[in-house]
Amino acid sequence: MANPVLVEALRGGVVESRHRGAVAVVDADGGQVVAIGDVERPVFPRSAVKAIQALPLVESGTADAYHFGNREIALASASHAGEWAHVELVQAMLARAGLDEPALECGAHWPTNHETTVALARSGAVPTQLHNNCSGKHAGFLCTCVHNGIDHHGYIGHGHAFQEMVREALETVTGAAHSVDACGTDGCSIPTYAVPLKNLAHGFARMASGTGLSSARAAAARRIFAACTAEPFYVAGTGRADTVMMEAGGGRLFTKGGAEGVFCAAILELGLGIALKCDDGAGRAAEVMVAAVLRDLLPEDDPLRTALAAMAQPALKNWRGIEVGSLRPAGALAG
Amino acid sequence: MANPVLVEALRGGVVESRHRGAVAVVDADGGQVVAIGDVERPVFPRSAVKAIQALPLVESGTADAYHFGNREIALASASHAGEWAHVELVQAMLARAGLDEPALECGAHWPTNHETTVALARSGAVPTQLHNNCSGKHAGFLCTCVHNGIDHHGYIGHGHAFQEMVREALETVTGAAHSVDACGTDGCSIPTYAVPLKNLAHGFARMASGTGLSSARAAAARRIFAACTAEPFYVAGTGRADTVMMEAGGGRLFTKGGAEGVFCAAILELGLGIALKCDDGAGRAAEVMVAAVLRDLLPEDDPLRTALAAMAQPALKNWRGIEVGSLRPAGALAG
Repeated sequence: MANPVLVEALRGGVVESRHRGAVAVVDADGGQVVAIGDVERPVFPRSAVKAIQALPLVESGTADAYHFGNREIALASASHAGEWAHVELVQAMLARAGLDEPALECGAHWPTNHETTVALARSGAVPTQLHNNCSGKHAGFLCTCVHNGIDHHGYIGHGHAFQEMVREALETVTGAAHSVDACGTDGCSIPTYAVPLKNLAHGFARMASGTGLSSARAAAARRIFAACTAEPFYVAGTGRADTVMMEAGGGRLFTKGGAEGVFCAAILELGLGIALKCDDGAGRAAEVMVAAVLRDLLPEDDPLRTALAAMAQPALKNWRGIEVGSLRPAGALAG
Repeated sequence: MANPVLVEALRGGVVESRHRGAVAVVDADGGQVVAIGDVERPVFPRSAVKAIQALPLVESGTADAYHFGNREIALASASHAGEWAHVELVQAMLARAGLDEPALECGAHWPTNHETTVALARSGAVPTQLHNNCSGKHAGFLCTCVHNGIDHHGYIGHGHAFQEMVREALETVTGAAHSVDACGTDGCSIPTYAVPLKNLAHGFARMASGTGLSSARAAAARRIFAACTAEPFYVAGTGRADTVMMEAGGGRLFTKGGAEGVFCAAILELGLGIALKCDDGAGRAAEVMVAAVLRDLLPEDDPLRTALAAMAQPALKNWRGIEVGSLRPAGALAG
């Protein structure tokens, strides 16, 4: 059974491309609020669960010991764009643990922020691992290792003591088994586990509400969400979906995209968790889907709906800046 | 009725993403050889029909008058990567008509070739319209205007005398109406018309065989295909799918990708035309689809099948160069 078409790309009034997907919305008690498409099929959440992966950093007391504020905790939960402020703060985080760039095991790539790539090239430099969009998360991992006396070498590997801490957090929060059978390697070389969307959604409802978590874990989740919503630039970067949505949300929305068309999100005041995947892995469609889902979950008269509705229908412009089409939510998300 | 899944993206043995699509293969007489999914639904061919759009350049005598060889004609049919050799040749083509970069109306963007972008930034320069992936086609357009006494200003516009020449060529070769109702604006600002995949496939069978075309048009089509297959670097660029496939084909295959997951192709010795679209617009999946379709159309003992089969199953590596998954043809293309 094919998942439904949830996003259409239009050009000149004709539907040019179609994106299918599945969406789960779950409340703090695990009740299914929305289920579109197959929400039981395991999907790799990729970077969308970085907030859960940041739990050990806070729970272990590392963030306090290293005097990490909202920016550092947001960056530890980020897929950042490699902008200067991101790179400098990652380096500062590593320095707290007495480490520097070579300790990272995430690999190097040019910044996803194009202006930064051009400026970096213009300066004659090449990107380092600090520019990797996952370097903030990895800095959080390394700091947690050092503070807790765990040998950080090979911290990215499946079975490493630190990755076992991360796996425990993911299993407890989502309530889904994270088995070696469903384990792949992520872009930044750490394990990623395929789990059902309904479990991911429940996990983000728990992160938002604390329901079903130990009080220490609930407090850590609250702190991570507060950090990300207070400093959305450090979770993504200039003009990027997570930053724009969380800025618009003014502390009410948590969102985090992942590679291959995944989004996890929460509406904090409602204790609702959202998880979705665009079948084909397109980020452009996943962004439309999450904006449309969040819009539909808010009350009719909520001004935030207007901002989200606009994000759910972005214009497509060509190289001369001419508007040639748009994306729009379709089917159950048509609104 | 959903088109079938034709490409799967795997990570650690788990299918992470799925791409659906439709494929038409038609012979020179219009006989349907393969039809997968909905081949009647109009699709925008985008850049995949540049070889047809180059017919006026050759038919009008412009290419001869300006002493254009294989490289110039290939570049006039190209979506190039903005590498130095591309940019210099576009400028040289414009110079033959007494024009320079400002005459182009395609807009500017950074080269799609990343090394060239870095080198350009390092030199302190910014991209011009010459770097636009469509600038070779636009240079061909401008030369044709100048040689034929057509005012080139606004040559990109629907209804401009030159675009009418292009539209006539597209209609005649594909046998499909190119109506204003199905007209959108392409990335480089010229009109693009949505037509059924079966017509696009038939058009490329005609281009390959000359069947059903006037002798002048058949000769022009032959010349364009000969130019592209002789100089595949000028059709795309270093390491890109069209270049790699046509190099492997050694003059037997013509291929041309377009934005939003479209591919048109031909097997010259068989007089077969191929047109396909990945529903969601993903280029990575369209490349796998076209390689798999071409593989399946060749005889079992053809060594070219081996090269195409490898292109149909590319490895996916992460930022540390670790192989984390692959793409593979699925369903009717599983092979």
